[in-house]
Amino acid sequence: MSQEILELIEKKDFKAVKTLLQDMLAPDIADIMEHSENVTNSVLLFRLLSKDLSAEVFSYLSSETQEGIVTFLNSSELSFIIEQLATDDAVDFLEEMPANIVRKALKGATPETRKLINKYLSYEEDTAGAIMTPEFISLQIDITTDEALDEIRRQGEEAETINVLYVVDSKKTLKGVLTIKELLLAKKGAPIKDVITDNVVATTTDMDQEKIATIFSKYDFLALPVVDKENRIVGIVTVDDIIDVIKEEATEDFEKMAAITPTNKPYLKTSVFSIWKNRIPWLMLLLISATFTGLILNVYQEKLSAISTALVACVPMIMDTGGNAGSQASVTVIRAMALGELTIKDWYKVVWKELLASALLGLSLAIVCFGKLLLIDHLLFGFEGYTIIRCLVISFVLMFTVIVAKLVGCILPMLAKKCHLDPAVVASPFITTIVDATSLIVYCLVSIAVLA
Amino acid sequence: MSQEILELIEKKDFKAVKTLLQDMLAPDIADIMEHSENVTNSVLLFRLLSKDLSAEVFSYLSSETQEGIVTFLNSSELSFIIEQLATDDAVDFLEEMPANIVRKALKGATPETRKLINKYLSYEEDTAGAIMTPEFISLQIDITTDEALDEIRRQGEEAETINVLYVVDSKKTLKGVLTIKELLLAKKGAPIKDVITDNVVATTTDMDQEKIATIFSKYDFLALPVVDKENRIVGIVTVDDIIDVIKEEATEDFEKMAAITPTNKPYLKTSVFSIWKNRIPWLMLLLISATFTGLILNVYQEKLSAISTALVACVPMIMDTGGNAGSQASVTVIRAMALGELTIKDWYKVVWKELLASALLGLSLAIVCFGKLLLIDHLLFGFEGYTIIRCLVISFVLMFTVIVAKLVGCILPMLAKKCHLDPAVVASPFITTIVDATSLIVYCLVSIAVLA
Repeated sequence: MSQEILELIEKKDFKAVKTLLQDMLAPDIADIMEHSENVTNSVLLFRLLSKDLSAEVFSYLSSETQEGIVTFLNSSELSFIIEQLATDDAVDFLEEMPANIVRKALKGATPETRKLINKYLSYEEDTAGAIMTPEFISLQIDITTDEALDEIRRQGEEAETINVLYVVDSKKTLKGVLTIKELLLAKKGAPIKDVITDNVVATTTDMDQEKIATIFSKYDFLALPVVDKENRIVGIVTVDDIIDVIKEEATEDFEKMAAITPTNKPYLKTSVFSIWKNRIPWLMLLLISATFTGLILNVYQEKLSAISTALVACVPMIMDTGGNAGSQASVTVIRAMALGELTIKDWYKVVWKELLASALLGLSLAIVCFGKLLLIDHLLFGFEGYTIIRCLVISFVLMFTVIVAKLVGCILPMLAKKCHLDPAVVASPFITTIVDATSLIVYCLVSIAVLA
Repeated sequence: MSQEILELIEKKDFKAVKTLLQDMLAPDIADIMEHSENVTNSVLLFRLLSKDLSAEVFSYLSSETQEGIVTFLNSSELSFIIEQLATDDAVDFLEEMPANIVRKALKGATPETRKLINKYLSYEEDTAGAIMTPEFISLQIDITTDEALDEIRRQGEEAETINVLYVVDSKKTLKGVLTIKELLLAKKGAPIKDVITDNVVATTTDMDQEKIATIFSKYDFLALPVVDKENRIVGIVTVDDIIDVIKEEATEDFEKMAAITPTNKPYLKTSVFSIWKNRIPWLMLLLISATFTGLILNVYQEKLSAISTALVACVPMIMDTGGNAGSQASVTVIRAMALGELTIKDWYKVVWKELLASALLGLSLAIVCFGKLLLIDHLLFGFEGYTIIRCLVISFVLMFTVIVAKLVGCILPMLAKKCHLDPAVVASPFITTIVDATSLIVYCLVSIAVLA
């Protein structure tokens, strides 16, 4: 379908395109524009859309494509889109645009829209204020269910959702919530104050979006009211935005754990220079911190080699296993904290669990390692130097490394959280560095003490 | 609050507990039961709930706590809960229970419930069938909007959602969808066939839940119909379940990337033995694969040391940097594929981007590494053997390692996807092993060729 439409546009057969577009959903049209290699074609396609549909399609575009499109639009076309977009979508769009486009867009907007958007733009990123929308339905508390239905029919067109209704008093203070289901199933003509839930879960404009996502997933909400200090409702956050937040926050954690500075840009739209910029600081930091392992090896390597080169050959295996064991623990703990399954006050349970698990894991690995060294390295490949006592020392240090790695791996993220740092940032690469250095020192000292 | 309620239960002041419970939401009550250290208290609390609320609270409990509660209930109490739960929640619960509890629960259920649940239990895990619910509202296509509202009032109590309505013909074939908003804002008395969207996005029972999540997030849906081969609607998937799916799938990817066998159990409820079982196979596999690096070092180490011990001391730095660089690329690519931002057919763009980025990154790191070796290791610490030519060789191999690591890191996950394997499984630990071996061979060969 998408290929077909792009070809028809190339051929300038706009009538056929219009016919095809009639039966399509906005996200699918946005998809075609997103994947078109040619901006002019996207703009042509965009101009073929009905006015109503064009704003909806626009809200589904990535900010890179939005920027590409708007550079071709004149000021009144741009203002029309701004007016048609839901406030949260308009704000999302403008937040990502360069200043000249923002000016152009706001110039033609009505004073009310301009004021509203400026207010929303002032909320800090990743807070309730930044993702909420003012297009909700509020009902006065003293009306009946029938009047409420009439009111919904009146306000509904503008509202982002009518699935949850917000009941306020004359001062706009939030008094209760009501789902459309509760309203429709309630007795006709009943006062709505008898139908509402007055134990309202609400949030404030400065609440972090990750916490809001936790609330949604705990209560299975479709929307959450945002209130000011006087408990007046100022906006709502809807579940579709929360899905984006959950995905975004998980992506950020993936990136941080892999030692990348997080960005919200899709990979294919990120420039090589940006990729370099997001990755180089961490690689540099880790490179410099590898000085420690180099230092230790510089000091002890000759003594180790003097005992047997077999000891040096096992260093990578011990370090890699330590790194893997550590990141297993850290990723588990970081994810459990992100999901709210684990809080700092459970720290002793975590440490105890990891201690037992690491002892078991370390022992299993040590046994297999001992066998591997004797059977594979010694017998199969015939390398010299793998005496039983040396293999025992290597296996012992491996077990020790696994235990240290697991403990560092679980404690460091909790410590970071305790210090109000992001646990994901201290994930595997840092833990690997610490574990590498610790295990290497122990390896060298134990080997030399026992074997020299 | 939660502490207060648990203390009142200890004191057996059930009246006070009941008063407190009156104003609470089901997820908050579930939370208290979840965090109570004592199952008997949880059961007492559960029995104090009104019958309606008890089923709702039950649906919010983790399966571990559900199992704890259920062992104290008699067959008729258990059947009551099963009857009250939404079908998808009942199925979720029974899926996790041991066979004797499932038998006990189904024994007292009505034949219809039993048949329904058995059917749902037969759907494969992680498919649309396994997460859908049959409690949706279906409307006949030949009625008017007013009749539709009456129908909603009739069917509504049982339905999981009335926000989206499904319009069918006499053969139950899905003809269109309609939101409650569209219905309420439509002209009174209009035929609903004029109001519905007939371009329906639907799924089949065997569709993977991860793909369904992508559909929800693309279209901002609140519910998605599930149809059989004859396009008859058999159930709906709702957005609250999709939020769980998105979180679950991200957690699984985190676990796989950290070389852990995924589980859906919360960390604190996982036994030490389960932790061992989920982590040991991968650690073993990686330990055995470290044989390669050991092998290479066994072969070349003496020759390297003969040139200078400085060369051996740099091995961990080169291997760690390679590992870090590789996991940056692999995590980025795996995540982009999971989010649907990247498909296999873009592979050449990815490889090209990573090639350019890795050349830049490698060059920057090589320059810094060169400086670090000369300034820190040589001048500051006074280690011998860091001649300019050796530092150049080490820096060159570092750059080469970064490029290889990035290429392996981006190609391997795409290759896995192409072979219908899970990309996340081939993430960092495996890439590290490959990169370690490759870079070590090159390091040894280049050093010996240039420096010996």
